[in-house]
Amino acid sequence: MNRRSFLGALALTAFAKPAPRAVNGGRLREHLEGLSVFGRPAGGSFANGVSRIAYSDADVAGRKYVMQLMAAAGLDPRVDAAGNILARRAGTDPALAPVLFGSHIDSVPTGGNFDGDLGSLAAIEVVHTLQESGVATRRPLEVAIWANEEGFAYNNGLAGSRAAAGHLEPGELDQVWNGVKQGDAIRKIGGDPGRIADARRQPGSFRCYLELHIEQGGTLDQAGIPIGVVEGIVAIDRYDVEIRGFANHAGTTPMPERRDALLAASYLTVAVNEIVRRDAGRQVGTVGQLTVSPNAPNIVPGLVRLTIELRDLRSATIARLAEEIRSRAAEIAAQTKTAISIRPAAHHGEALAAPEVQESIEAACEKLGLRSRRLPSGAGHDAQMMAQLGPMGMIFVPSVAGISHSPDELSRWTDCTNGANVLLETVLAWAQRP
Amino acid sequence: MNRRSFLGALALTAFAKPAPRAVNGGRLREHLEGLSVFGRPAGGSFANGVSRIAYSDADVAGRKYVMQLMAAAGLDPRVDAAGNILARRAGTDPALAPVLFGSHIDSVPTGGNFDGDLGSLAAIEVVHTLQESGVATRRPLEVAIWANEEGFAYNNGLAGSRAAAGHLEPGELDQVWNGVKQGDAIRKIGGDPGRIADARRQPGSFRCYLELHIEQGGTLDQAGIPIGVVEGIVAIDRYDVEIRGFANHAGTTPMPERRDALLAASYLTVAVNEIVRRDAGRQVGTVGQLTVSPNAPNIVPGLVRLTIELRDLRSATIARLAEEIRSRAAEIAAQTKTAISIRPAAHHGEALAAPEVQESIEAACEKLGLRSRRLPSGAGHDAQMMAQLGPMGMIFVPSVAGISHSPDELSRWTDCTNGANVLLETVLAWAQRP
Repeated sequence: MNRRSFLGALALTAFAKPAPRAVNGGRLREHLEGLSVFGRPAGGSFANGVSRIAYSDADVAGRKYVMQLMAAAGLDPRVDAAGNILARRAGTDPALAPVLFGSHIDSVPTGGNFDGDLGSLAAIEVVHTLQESGVATRRPLEVAIWANEEGFAYNNGLAGSRAAAGHLEPGELDQVWNGVKQGDAIRKIGGDPGRIADARRQPGSFRCYLELHIEQGGTLDQAGIPIGVVEGIVAIDRYDVEIRGFANHAGTTPMPERRDALLAASYLTVAVNEIVRRDAGRQVGTVGQLTVSPNAPNIVPGLVRLTIELRDLRSATIARLAEEIRSRAAEIAAQTKTAISIRPAAHHGEALAAPEVQESIEAACEKLGLRSRRLPSGAGHDAQMMAQLGPMGMIFVPSVAGISHSPDELSRWTDCTNGANVLLETVLAWAQRP
Repeated sequence: MNRRSFLGALALTAFAKPAPRAVNGGRLREHLEGLSVFGRPAGGSFANGVSRIAYSDADVAGRKYVMQLMAAAGLDPRVDAAGNILARRAGTDPALAPVLFGSHIDSVPTGGNFDGDLGSLAAIEVVHTLQESGVATRRPLEVAIWANEEGFAYNNGLAGSRAAAGHLEPGELDQVWNGVKQGDAIRKIGGDPGRIADARRQPGSFRCYLELHIEQGGTLDQAGIPIGVVEGIVAIDRYDVEIRGFANHAGTTPMPERRDALLAASYLTVAVNEIVRRDAGRQVGTVGQLTVSPNAPNIVPGLVRLTIELRDLRSATIARLAEEIRSRAAEIAAQTKTAISIRPAAHHGEALAAPEVQESIEAACEKLGLRSRRLPSGAGHDAQMMAQLGPMGMIFVPSVAGISHSPDELSRWTDCTNGANVLLETVLAWAQRP
């Protein structure tokens, strides 16, 4: 037993024998630390984050660890055709649809140890707690660890939950991703691309879906509120913009004769920011990717490609913002003698949390004496796919300084335990519902 | 004789037997077309431009062709230690310093057939014309074809004329450039890196330096004026700018909490343009290079690196502009919660044309009945190095639509002939001066 394990055991002892309806926070922490070694940078510690890219060897090892935790919690996990890990705990009325809850354990490259991991291990901890204290539920409970949530690009992410919702795109399994064909990658984690349709769930196949997750933004942390009740996952519109000017010698081309694509791009980037910020609300707009051609200090830029991404809980809001941006872009093109084309590249509709699920999460918070606040989720989650099949709700805990997708991603252990307890209470409430 | 050569011969006949004090425009065109085949894209024509990168096989072949033209004009060319091709025609008073004139024949990748080529072949044509008509001059004449004017980056260009002016930087011959050590590249074109100092010229080693060149901007073409009298070559200041914000999730980071490096860069790019354009004058300012990190559609940019380049005939003007830009950058940094560092990366002082040389060019234009206009050269030229050793002047001819460093670079044959005749008259005027 090394020093770390010894201290871990001490902590375990301190938190042992929890009240029947509270999770074991020490054990949850121990499991999060245990999972963090799979994909940890060489020679690093928990604080150095993780690179547990979906389908990597680290992902395979992490999934094995998680299935061991499930077994220890009395579950018998199986891997579906899409590579999702699923496990059921029987209810007293086996005819009823289960309460489904979980998250994912894959990470972005150089990510943190809370995004997905917390919701996954808290789901197992909820079952472990009930198992230990011999609590039976009316409805069955089902834990889901979704495969490949992060992806490298939006369309490649949420792969497991999209398969479950019947939203795998045609030909997606043949796409080569990170050097490997998607179908082969799914096979690597125990899935079966040949019968991928078997992974599909029917609407009504669960009573409700719940997911605990870190906020990934700084709203809760700044306000000092321990629990966020998610109103929904925002709609996202992405546009690919191409600005054509004319590349010319930066020394010999007088200012009035220039058709500077980067100048036009700069006016447009400022306009996106101003238009999005003008009205109150949680809508966001981002120019995140921009490339210049020829991109030399002494050449007036002739071509710029950039992306505009708009997010809001209401699709109508971002459609209106996009219209204003288009209209401003036309003015900028005229003023800078450039041509600006704005092409829709992706649209993802909003996924609203069911009001009754939001209310039940608030009731759990009230019972536990925890303050809560409603807020949208600006990031995508597997929950948005489940929202297409049944009532969905998400529980957020604070991210320190709002940092995520980074080794600096951090949520306090107390907040993690609180979040797991809110999950436990909400699961129990729905497990008793007709 | 193919069809093209036959037509060329016809043109030659039409223009044959020029008046004693006018160049042979048909021959000049024939030579420009002859030189254009060295570095021409496979299967292309004159209109497809040229890639005659310095020290390439195409450069070596083009230099050989040019030395043949020199021999045909009665010159006996030599290659100096820096790879410059130099040839003297004796004067009646051999004790006097020569009139030096020429240009370069290397090109940028996918460049045009006039930049450098015109001034080089017109210089040879001037001597050829005098030789044919048996005109003797008091001072010797010296033609220079400078090596590696273009380079790939500013510091690597003007290599031959910088060696002549004693401005090769320490260690420059050891630098690997385009996969080849600079010293070895110079050896390839007949130079001798071991005795590079021999290429250095002393101040007063020529009476004046003259260079005919295409404008590379659109001023003369737009105004319909055939000859530009260059006031000087602009000073250039380049700054490397680094903008540090904080990379964060584009969905979960509310607008007021962002520290968006690209938004700051956009404000700065607009500010550079506005500050430079505010006052009348020919000053220019360019943000030509910009890179974003992490550069993903769904991440608020955390880091932007960009270049600011300022040019004007007066160093004092660009110093004042730089101060205004710095002051505006500080405001932008505060407003966007970013850190902006502006580091001077390069400074090249202005090289003014001697007033008496400008006047003599104007006198030549008047004699030939050609309208002229004074203007700065926004581009760098070998002439700026020669200006450090003696009186310098440059003659510009119009670039159609101001296009240069492109296969579309074009100067009308009439304008080329006019420019060569102005060069001839100016050379003769200075060759008679005490």
